[in-house]
Amino acid sequence: MPTRRELANAIRVLSMDAVEKANSGHPGAPMGMADIAQVLWQDFLKYNPGNPLWLDRDRFVLSNGHASMLLYSLAYLSGFPLQLDELKNFRQLGSRTAGHPEHEPEIGIETTTGPLGQGLANGVGMALAEKILAAHFNRPGLPIIDHHTWVFCGDGCLMEGVSHEACSLAGTLKLGKLIVFYDDNDISIDGKVKGWFADNTPERFAAYGWHVQSIDGHDADAIAEATRKARDENERPSIICCKTVIGWGAPTKAGTKATHGEALGAEEVAGARQQLGWKDPPFVVPPEILKAWNHAEAGRAAEDAWKQLFARYRSAHPQLAAELERRMAGKLPASWADTRKAAIAAAQAVSGAQATRVSSQAALNSIGGGLPELLGGSADLTGSNNTLQKISRGIDPDDASGNYIHYGVREFGMTAVMNGIALHGGLIPYGGTFLTFSDYARNAVRMAALMHQRVLLVYTHDSIGLGEDGPTHQPIEHLNALRLIPNLTLWRPADAVESVIAWCEAIEHAAGPSALVFTRQGLPQLPRTPAALAAIARGGYVLSDCEGTPECIVIGTGSEVSLAVAAAKAVAAQGKRVRVVSMPSTERFDAQDVAYRDSVLPPAVRARVAVEAGSTGLWWRYVGDRGRVIGLDHYGASGKAPELYKKFGITAEHVQQEILDSIKGTDK
Amino acid sequence: MPTRRELANAIRVLSMDAVEKANSGHPGAPMGMADIAQVLWQDFLKYNPGNPLWLDRDRFVLSNGHASMLLYSLAYLSGFPLQLDELKNFRQLGSRTAGHPEHEPEIGIETTTGPLGQGLANGVGMALAEKILAAHFNRPGLPIIDHHTWVFCGDGCLMEGVSHEACSLAGTLKLGKLIVFYDDNDISIDGKVKGWFADNTPERFAAYGWHVQSIDGHDADAIAEATRKARDENERPSIICCKTVIGWGAPTKAGTKATHGEALGAEEVAGARQQLGWKDPPFVVPPEILKAWNHAEAGRAAEDAWKQLFARYRSAHPQLAAELERRMAGKLPASWADTRKAAIAAAQAVSGAQATRVSSQAALNSIGGGLPELLGGSADLTGSNNTLQKISRGIDPDDASGNYIHYGVREFGMTAVMNGIALHGGLIPYGGTFLTFSDYARNAVRMAALMHQRVLLVYTHDSIGLGEDGPTHQPIEHLNALRLIPNLTLWRPADAVESVIAWCEAIEHAAGPSALVFTRQGLPQLPRTPAALAAIARGGYVLSDCEGTPECIVIGTGSEVSLAVAAAKAVAAQGKRVRVVSMPSTERFDAQDVAYRDSVLPPAVRARVAVEAGSTGLWWRYVGDRGRVIGLDHYGASGKAPELYKKFGITAEHVQQEILDSIKGTDK
Repeated sequence: MPTRRELANAIRVLSMDAVEKANSGHPGAPMGMADIAQVLWQDFLKYNPGNPLWLDRDRFVLSNGHASMLLYSLAYLSGFPLQLDELKNFRQLGSRTAGHPEHEPEIGIETTTGPLGQGLANGVGMALAEKILAAHFNRPGLPIIDHHTWVFCGDGCLMEGVSHEACSLAGTLKLGKLIVFYDDNDISIDGKVKGWFADNTPERFAAYGWHVQSIDGHDADAIAEATRKARDENERPSIICCKTVIGWGAPTKAGTKATHGEALGAEEVAGARQQLGWKDPPFVVPPEILKAWNHAEAGRAAEDAWKQLFARYRSAHPQLAAELERRMAGKLPASWADTRKAAIAAAQAVSGAQATRVSSQAALNSIGGGLPELLGGSADLTGSNNTLQKISRGIDPDDASGNYIHYGVREFGMTAVMNGIALHGGLIPYGGTFLTFSDYARNAVRMAALMHQRVLLVYTHDSIGLGEDGPTHQPIEHLNALRLIPNLTLWRPADAVESVIAWCEAIEHAAGPSALVFTRQGLPQLPRTPAALAAIARGGYVLSDCEGTPECIVIGTGSEVSLAVAAAKAVAAQGKRVRVVSMPSTERFDAQDVAYRDSVLPPAVRARVAVEAGSTGLWWRYVGDRGRVIGLDHYGASGKAPELYKKFGITAEHVQQEILDSIKGTDK
Repeated sequence: MPTRRELANAIRVLSMDAVEKANSGHPGAPMGMADIAQVLWQDFLKYNPGNPLWLDRDRFVLSNGHASMLLYSLAYLSGFPLQLDELKNFRQLGSRTAGHPEHEPEIGIETTTGPLGQGLANGVGMALAEKILAAHFNRPGLPIIDHHTWVFCGDGCLMEGVSHEACSLAGTLKLGKLIVFYDDNDISIDGKVKGWFADNTPERFAAYGWHVQSIDGHDADAIAEATRKARDENERPSIICCKTVIGWGAPTKAGTKATHGEALGAEEVAGARQQLGWKDPPFVVPPEILKAWNHAEAGRAAEDAWKQLFARYRSAHPQLAAELERRMAGKLPASWADTRKAAIAAAQAVSGAQATRVSSQAALNSIGGGLPELLGGSADLTGSNNTLQKISRGIDPDDASGNYIHYGVREFGMTAVMNGIALHGGLIPYGGTFLTFSDYARNAVRMAALMHQRVLLVYTHDSIGLGEDGPTHQPIEHLNALRLIPNLTLWRPADAVESVIAWCEAIEHAAGPSALVFTRQGLPQLPRTPAALAAIARGGYVLSDCEGTPECIVIGTGSEVSLAVAAAKAVAAQGKRVRVVSMPSTERFDAQDVAYRDSVLPPAVRARVAVEAGSTGLWWRYVGDRGRVIGLDHYGASGKAPELYKKFGITAEHVQQEILDSIKGTDK
């Protein structure tokens, strides 16, 4: 039977070999954390490599994603369907072993990591999802949801602000089944961290209400004992601060930044082999070590035990069992089509001015009852974001049976936690903040998009229309900047009907996040034909039209659509033929076929005006050479919203003028 | 002589009156922090309202910017040139009393705040600047730089991740003259914070190495004593946790979220007047209270004492005195023109492939020696960002005489700290990270732009060209997304010469931040005429041209310019007339007069191709209806850079094809 150290050394050798072959990568952290990983994965982690998607598996997150070879080594060794050839192709185009781990739970990669701190926050989200689902589904004697979330992280993760946001929240919410191993190796890219990171990390986490231990990260017994204690602690999240040596095993470079982010070099690798007593050539792991690592049998046994439990659960609670399976599969309920229909009908009944944030809340109230997986929240702007449903109930540290999270003033943390919730499965998270503060969370939005996660971002106060709070709170570039994020769909609805359809489309779109953007100020309800109603979901549609071929097309979004309508009406009175296009989602519109797009924006009609109370940048593509764009390419100001609209020329009169000029072809 | 409480009540009454009149704003925090403000501003703060820009003044930052009426009240009461009428026009268009404080040191507003946590980080930057300038300029017995930075912050600031980044760094760097008052009022917008913010904040800050005190924030004696102790502590930054009641003085709403973000209402205001014993009508402060508040005389005396010190300094160290004044005025040295010239000449001598991050470092080495105010740094990517100059010397906790800050893995903190450094004056900060991680800092970049601060953002690894690190690290949307931020100038140079000019332009541009974007991979040096060289600073220029009117214009930036050149050469061989435009800065190009822009991009030439290894979105405006854009509107992949460029079609061959198609007018 190989020793623990020999088992850990398999990780070390595979990691340094793969980095060496790629001549690119990060050997230091895998070599430093190998002993911890060996104890965790072999003695504690609950998983079945034969069925990686087992819903009650433990979740493992490598927050220090540059240590990707650690995860690939573990996946290969323990028997996930990741072949040795993939390790040999580390970091090569087309391989499953990318430079940083890319979400693929089928081979044990629960989340994409690399942008530091966010994996840790994803882990908080996963642990929170587990706690909530357990409260929703477990029944006495039938703990069918009962798993841990384990996170590896490094100094970088703990320097990042998002670690504060997520870990403070985890402590407050008492996520007792979250366990973090901190790779305390004193080294970051610039060198010895003490010159820029002198925190007393144990004390910091104690201040968050965590259970804290400090150990030697190369002492397997100490690791096992601390892990046991952490697992036995059910009230508080745990952090185990592991003092380690980066690049452990490298004869001359261990303990230095030279092992962090580059190949060790042939000589150092040879020296490491000698020091580790590893006789085999690159990528060869002796059969007895491979055998000792293989988790197929133990994993199957673990899942079998759970399956028996779940069978008892199913016979006692058949509906709940089916509901859990539905939710974990990410499928909407059978009643969804009716829910959607009723919600749209309710929105159509709205008359009079209403802020779209209010319309959004009404939509939520129409939808939420039929969609128990909807998990709301706000970064401390609940009353302003209108994110609370009538049926919303807060998640408390001691009662997780609700469906609403007060995330606190933590936009980045909220978003990265929502990513973790979505990754876990069983819940569809939505969370609100002001559109401007999407900036704080921007990279987490990107990660949701990169990972194709259904995360719903509620952004209210979407323009200078928020008024007196002034330029720090008034988004300008944000609509365009969010639209630039690949695989994010942004909706900026113009009234109650568009708002509810935006919500429905976002909920139905399982393959990526959606940003739902709403106003603070009241907007009129827009009349539309059944055809127009049906076309909203296509992202851009003809809201009002003229007889015959239009002389000009006006495109608007959100609060500016009603200005476009008013302007079109005024110029129609002068005998001009103008079409108004409402474009709540440019991404969705762009995804339509050419025939549809050309039917909305006929290529022959070159006189075009776009109006949106934000940057003009992306609109030039829609209006073309003869077109005009009314927007704002500068900051706003503190004042009353109507005065700001007037001051900055976002008015029906201005739209009217641009329509006429565009038709005339006047110089811009 | 009015009591301290009466003096504090003047703040309370002005704040609630102004919010009431505007029917918008935040009365709770000013009323809760009034007692602290009274003690600080009247007994400790070193300032002269008669000369608000006195360079050795204390800096005061209201990080919880929604409490703006606190700051406006203080400015008015203590005698800054802020008239009572401005308070009456609180939050109205055109007033100096915006919803959130907007940088205007002339009336005591040292930084724009509102986006939570960032004011605190700005304060860390100011205190750091003070420490560095003191080390650069003070001489034995002549402490001409010797002031404190005082920060007010609330629960929201401390929940934000940037507070962790900045405060951890402040503790590490031992910023003993930074003193923070934490308004610990248990309330945030969603209600009682204990449901989402249960940190032991004193313990957290002790973990950062801070000096921590906890007091009753309504007990003036306790406040004064704690402030004295904090001021006497020179080694560690201080936080004074002040237990307060939000909306203190409001009879029924005090202590509740109802006082946070809306007018109290006439009845509550009347009740508060009664409870506070305030007899006067709205906006009337009794003369004896006004007199007791007025700081004109005390301020003049304080500055006069310093002036005497500075006069002695000047006579002992005339050159240093002049140098300090130059640097505080934000003027470049007289030698600057020569420095620039020599740096360009050095870049012109480069031959062969060189990554622009290396060219950037060479530029820094050319420039740095002649520009002692340049203060470098990196968010733990020093070796990758190439931000270290030959003359760089790290800032240590115990020796601040250097010129380089290891910011740690803290992109947002770094940027907000740089904003504070720039706001303080006397230093020009630059700091590096990977372009992708500009996301983490995005709102701080926006704040630099909004405040017109000269902050230099070095972003390397600017495309898929970074290769194996994969899609988490490969920027796609970032170039366009940054260009959208108003008043930010982005430079993406194509070779060594453009790199040095980008640096020089950024340094000369005092009215806003610049993003300097560089490659990881090597790029060839481009030949250019003297006219082209001279035109680089205009943001876009003709790099290579054809005889006669071009049939097509190819526009490229950075690493793609050489592809454009190669493609143009290839089609020229087929007899086509093609012009190549290098466009390192679209913002700068857009700011040129029409005649120049039309000379580079003649309106009559409609066949156009733009190429940039990033989002295509903003380029359509430059290429127009017949143009084409080669870019990436999806994520990258992990692999070798040349393979990625090929896979994603960012090649000279593709450019060539699009040139021909554009000339033909083939359907896109």
